[in-house]
Amino acid sequence: MLNQQPNLDLMFQALADPTRRAMVDRLSRGPASVSELAKPFDMSLPAVVQHLQALEASGLVSSQKIGRVRTCQIEPEALSLAEKWINDRRTSWVRRLDRLGDLLAAEEPETRT
Amino acid sequence: MLNQQPNLDLMFQALADPTRRAMVDRLSRGPASVSELAKPFDMSLPAVVQHLQALEASGLVSSQKIGRVRTCQIEPEALSLAEKWINDRRTSWVRRLDRLGDLLAAEEPETRT
Repeated sequence: MLNQQPNLDLMFQALADPTRRAMVDRLSRGPASVSELAKPFDMSLPAVVQHLQALEASGLVSSQKIGRVRTCQIEPEALSLAEKWINDRRTSWVRRLDRLGDLLAAEEPETRT
Repeated sequence: MLNQQPNLDLMFQALADPTRRAMVDRLSRGPASVSELAKPFDMSLPAVVQHLQALEASGLVSSQKIGRVRTCQIEPEALSLAEKWINDRRTSWVRRLDRLGDLLAAEEPETRT
């Protein structure tokens, strides 16, 4: 499991799966071993590892193996990147609505005279 | 193209594609017809429509056909939902770090005596 650079395609792809979102949710409360992460899910360890690999490839999660235990943790900067992409578009839309509102307000006195 | 309820799986899946992100980016600056949306992309109209269908199925985009022209617009509440999901996990992590910081600060006087 290589810890790679964040990539929006892979990040949103990683978040598109409910199991992987549940893993991110668990890791947002603190680091966890692979077996701790696997516990709530009724799936094989290889399936869990595959989900973790998708999360690591996206940059949202990193892991470190010490002895026999691999510990996973969230990468908040990567989460920020995905969040910022969405926020920038949403605020762009809100700013546009504000500009339209200003234009309408500026037009009003003329239409009233 | 049915306008459906937002769904996190479908929303993140929709955002995992650079063409669809470019469409959301364009729509964040104002509504656009399907042909306006298609213009910057070197792809067939059916391919563009397929991307739009994925965006509409996710709830991130809605469209309305008036006469012969289908106009698409962004759904800011759906964007908010996706953004909030990420933000909640990121802030959960940040709060955890703050609590750890507080614990360390509370421990310090004891270790110094």
